[in-house]
Amino acid sequence: MSQYRVLIDANDEKGLVHKVSTIFYENDLNILSNSEFVDKENNKFFMRSFVDGAINKKVLTDAINAVLPVNSSVKVIEPKKKNIIIMATKELHALGDILIRHESGELEANILAVVSNYDKLESLVQKFDIPYITVSHENLERPEHEARVIEAIDSFEEVDYIVLAKYMRILTPAFVEHYENKIINIHHSFLPAFIGANPYKQAYDRGVKIIGATAHFVNNNLDEGPIIAQEIQAVNHAYTWKDMQRSGRDVEKVVLSRALKLALEDRIFVYANKTVIF
Amino acid sequence: MSQYRVLIDANDEKGLVHKVSTIFYENDLNILSNSEFVDKENNKFFMRSFVDGAINKKVLTDAINAVLPVNSSVKVIEPKKKNIIIMATKELHALGDILIRHESGELEANILAVVSNYDKLESLVQKFDIPYITVSHENLERPEHEARVIEAIDSFEEVDYIVLAKYMRILTPAFVEHYENKIINIHHSFLPAFIGANPYKQAYDRGVKIIGATAHFVNNNLDEGPIIAQEIQAVNHAYTWKDMQRSGRDVEKVVLSRALKLALEDRIFVYANKTVIF
Amino acid sequence: MSQYRVLIDANDEKGLVHKVSTIFYENDLNILSNSEFVDKENNKFFMRSFVDGAINKKVLTDAINAVLPVNSSVKVIEPKKKNIIIMATKELHALGDILIRHESGELEANILAVVSNYDKLESLVQKFDIPYITVSHENLERPEHEARVIEAIDSFEEVDYIVLAKYMRILTPAFVEHYENKIINIHHSFLPAFIGANPYKQAYDRGVKIIGATAHFVNNNLDEGPIIAQEIQAVNHAYTWKDMQRSGRDVEKVVLSRALKLALEDRIFVYANKTVIF
Amino acid sequence: MSQYRVLIDANDEKGLVHKVSTIFYENDLNILSNSEFVDKENNKFFMRSFVDGAINKKVLTDAINAVLPVNSSVKVIEPKKKNIIIMATKELHALGDILIRHESGELEANILAVVSNYDKLESLVQKFDIPYITVSHENLERPEHEARVIEAIDSFEEVDYIVLAKYMRILTPAFVEHYENKIINIHHSFLPAFIGANPYKQAYDRGVKIIGATAHFVNNNLDEGPIIAQEIQAVNHAYTWKDMQRSGRDVEKVVLSRALKLALEDRIFVYANKTVIF
Repeated sequence: MSQYRVLIDANDEKGLVHKVSTIFYENDLNILSNSEFVDKENNKFFMRSFVDGAINKKVLTDAINAVLPVNSSVKVIEPKKKNIIIMATKELHALGDILIRHESGELEANILAVVSNYDKLESLVQKFDIPYITVSHENLERPEHEARVIEAIDSFEEVDYIVLAKYMRILTPAFVEHYENKIINIHHSFLPAFIGANPYKQAYDRGVKIIGATAHFVNNNLDEGPIIAQEIQAVNHAYTWKDMQRSGRDVEKVVLSRALKLALEDRIFVYANKTVIF
Repeated sequence: MSQYRVLIDANDEKGLVHKVSTIFYENDLNILSNSEFVDKENNKFFMRSFVDGAINKKVLTDAINAVLPVNSSVKVIEPKKKNIIIMATKELHALGDILIRHESGELEANILAVVSNYDKLESLVQKFDIPYITVSHENLERPEHEARVIEAIDSFEEVDYIVLAKYMRILTPAFVEHYENKIINIHHSFLPAFIGANPYKQAYDRGVKIIGATAHFVNNNLDEGPIIAQEIQAVNHAYTWKDMQRSGRDVEKVVLSRALKLALEDRIFVYANKTVIF
Repeated sequence: MSQYRVLIDANDEKGLVHKVSTIFYENDLNILSNSEFVDKENNKFFMRSFVDGAINKKVLTDAINAVLPVNSSVKVIEPKKKNIIIMATKELHALGDILIRHESGELEANILAVVSNYDKLESLVQKFDIPYITVSHENLERPEHEARVIEAIDSFEEVDYIVLAKYMRILTPAFVEHYENKIINIHHSFLPAFIGANPYKQAYDRGVKIIGATAHFVNNNLDEGPIIAQEIQAVNHAYTWKDMQRSGRDVEKVVLSRALKLALEDRIFVYANKTVIF
Repeated sequence: MSQYRVLIDANDEKGLVHKVSTIFYENDLNILSNSEFVDKENNKFFMRSFVDGAINKKVLTDAINAVLPVNSSVKVIEPKKKNIIIMATKELHALGDILIRHESGELEANILAVVSNYDKLESLVQKFDIPYITVSHENLERPEHEARVIEAIDSFEEVDYIVLAKYMRILTPAFVEHYENKIINIHHSFLPAFIGANPYKQAYDRGVKIIGATAHFVNNNLDEGPIIAQEIQAVNHAYTWKDMQRSGRDVEKVVLSRALKLALEDRIFVYANKTVIF
């Protein structure tokens, strides 16, 4: 008996639920949970089913593919720990939160390594017996630095996600393309407000009464990738921007960990620079 | 062409999605949206589909019934305005919110009447050309008063929901049974905290940092019916209980209106003193 | 015996609390509540005291002024209903919320009139015996239209605040200057995200997971005035932009009413395009 | 030059702000921030000032005491790291969060030790070079076990706060009295809802739509001590109680850390089983 997460992404047409559920039924699969969504504007159909039964993964994939319209995508995934690389710079709250979740066993992931442009967090990470790779950017052009980061990451066999836990360097389009839809970032503002540098300072200057954080996939345009999760916190006139920063860290780490969990559980579809999340 | 909301409540067994979606498919119905949930603890299956196509309501109901296990329930509902009675006492915020929504056309309901044990809100309600029926409880035993209220309500032909918009009288089991799963109440606390009288005073005395409101169906046990919606608001030591009450009213009215909307759109299943909401 | 709200705005220097509280003490005034804030970045001191006692308003103002540094501002205000004009266009949720609060007596304000560029909301407003003035913008240049609006507003003797309850016209700098720090607007986004037209459509296109609303004073730059209050609400991929709009209205009306209450209670200081709120 | 946090708790009477601020002024102290609150119901005055200047701590304390009514309390506190003991059982999320904050330097505290009735968390804690003391409760009567815990705690010279980071044992009144107003607990529900064991199971059974966590000082009545901070999170019918538990942990750890921060910054007054927090 196996359990599978079945993710379908297709152009919508009548009968898709019928066709897919018929395959489940005829193969004696039990549906443990099931979610569908039709984006009428774009005529797109999304479905995520969690099933169990005695069927070969490839057989199931092919059977579903056979009934879907052309240009559809179907993924049949066995739940297992995914492999992640965490990238950080100097702040440890977001990284620390992931390390603690990993230690507690709640994270459905193996942390292959932490890659940073500084060695500041090395002693913390090593406490957890996780490799720490410092790739300093000093005296390096951005492409050269990124080449070294890529080398460090690609020294691991299979990397499912790269988690930017307050990695404070702008990534080039080349880097982002290399890991398309695999890089999850936490931006320390309620996007699209306050893109770019020092959003808490920007928020303070604007006099907002709420600050936030946004976890998103990284695409070529800085801070403009598909949003996975957002959360906010009330502030008031008595907050300096440093207070906002301190206070915002609690939101950042919780939102990043929430987004990571959704990714690890294969709950996210990306399309049209948005996410559908089941 | 008709549109139907199909609500299915059944003991779970393999193939239910397949069987129901096959009926939709064979009758050439288009699924506009679809939600399912299996409560594994109680082995219960819930499904709500919004479909359109050319089929008679009874034919569709019978077809679905034919494939469901025994003791299942299927409702096929044509979206149309439901008939509601609002009950209130003296406070007008929750009632007023519903009246404004009704006036704006956003409420999928006809307000047949407002029934109150006081005449205080009469002039407001009459501005909106809605009948106001005062059924004073003065000098009446509770059963006698309720008999008159029931008489007032039942003078209308078809009442889908009775909305207690801060109706401050305890209802007898007899009254509640008479309108089973039809009475929606707003309780001014985050249930199950602070049941009973004056929850804001209780909340103040306890020194809570958050107050809330809970919309629920009314059952025989006061404040213990199935919860539909809850919302909260931060408070602090500077709030008197009157401040909490004033501030809480904004939460109350929004939560009650949200719960009413869910009911009017046939999105709520009730079972085991809980709600499943799609 | 009188009650006063004392609002002080001064360049910070040592001893201000001492000096002001000494005046209260020597004049036998009772401090009912007291709040202070020092903006260290701008070296500004803000204080709001609520006091009662037997003293003439002018005497108290002069006494405080005498101990403050130059360029300070002190306002001694007797709590009483302020006069407001509401401006609206076609949507009634924000206007309706204010009307209901006014009807319930909770609003510390007299609504002098509702001014609109359409007559759509007239019947609603007249139910509440409030004058409704339609100033159509049809076939008029913006300055000409605004001149007529100003004429309508200025026909009332004393107008404390102008509340834009979803007034969907851009105001000219001339209009804004005419009512400096008197115009409160509700913008249907979490500013500074999605300034300009149709923010819900913008939010939908961006794929945000949270929508919001912002109440602010209006200054010359559209959507860039000092923020008074903000609130948010979670959304997901299943929301169309129309759903976001519908759902956002509940946030809009609550935030606008909250901001209005703060203004009516003289709790807001404006400086450096921000607000200090006690 | 020294900085002091001055905390005053007195029966209210006219002139207190004047008297205290006069002392600050005459001693050439600068007020960096200042908060006051009068509980009119109980006629109690609270004030917290953050001042700097050249004055001896005892001199300042005596000067303030001299102008306060009888039965007042004044504390003049130099900001410095406080000493805390953390107690835990088997769950590491709340403990881990505090350890990471400690590691990052953001916590204004020295963690003297972690005391637990199990050794499960020992390896984690030792990573951070913090003593871990296992005091097993096996085969011990509660008083005997607590005597050993007290012995472990009291082996440290000065303990400011004991933080129960999911310590899953009920404390006796004797233990609580021994550390009056020094024990901070996180309860995994929105108190006063779901006191006692397994609140997530209780919340699930009740069918709530929001879960929460409450940080509070521990007094003799289980789960009934003065509330410091509360936070909530939305759930729905699809959450099992295990899902609620998992999800609730994020709220628990954030609320506990927030409460601890307030305590470490001397921002909390306790009276009448409530807290006043500046």
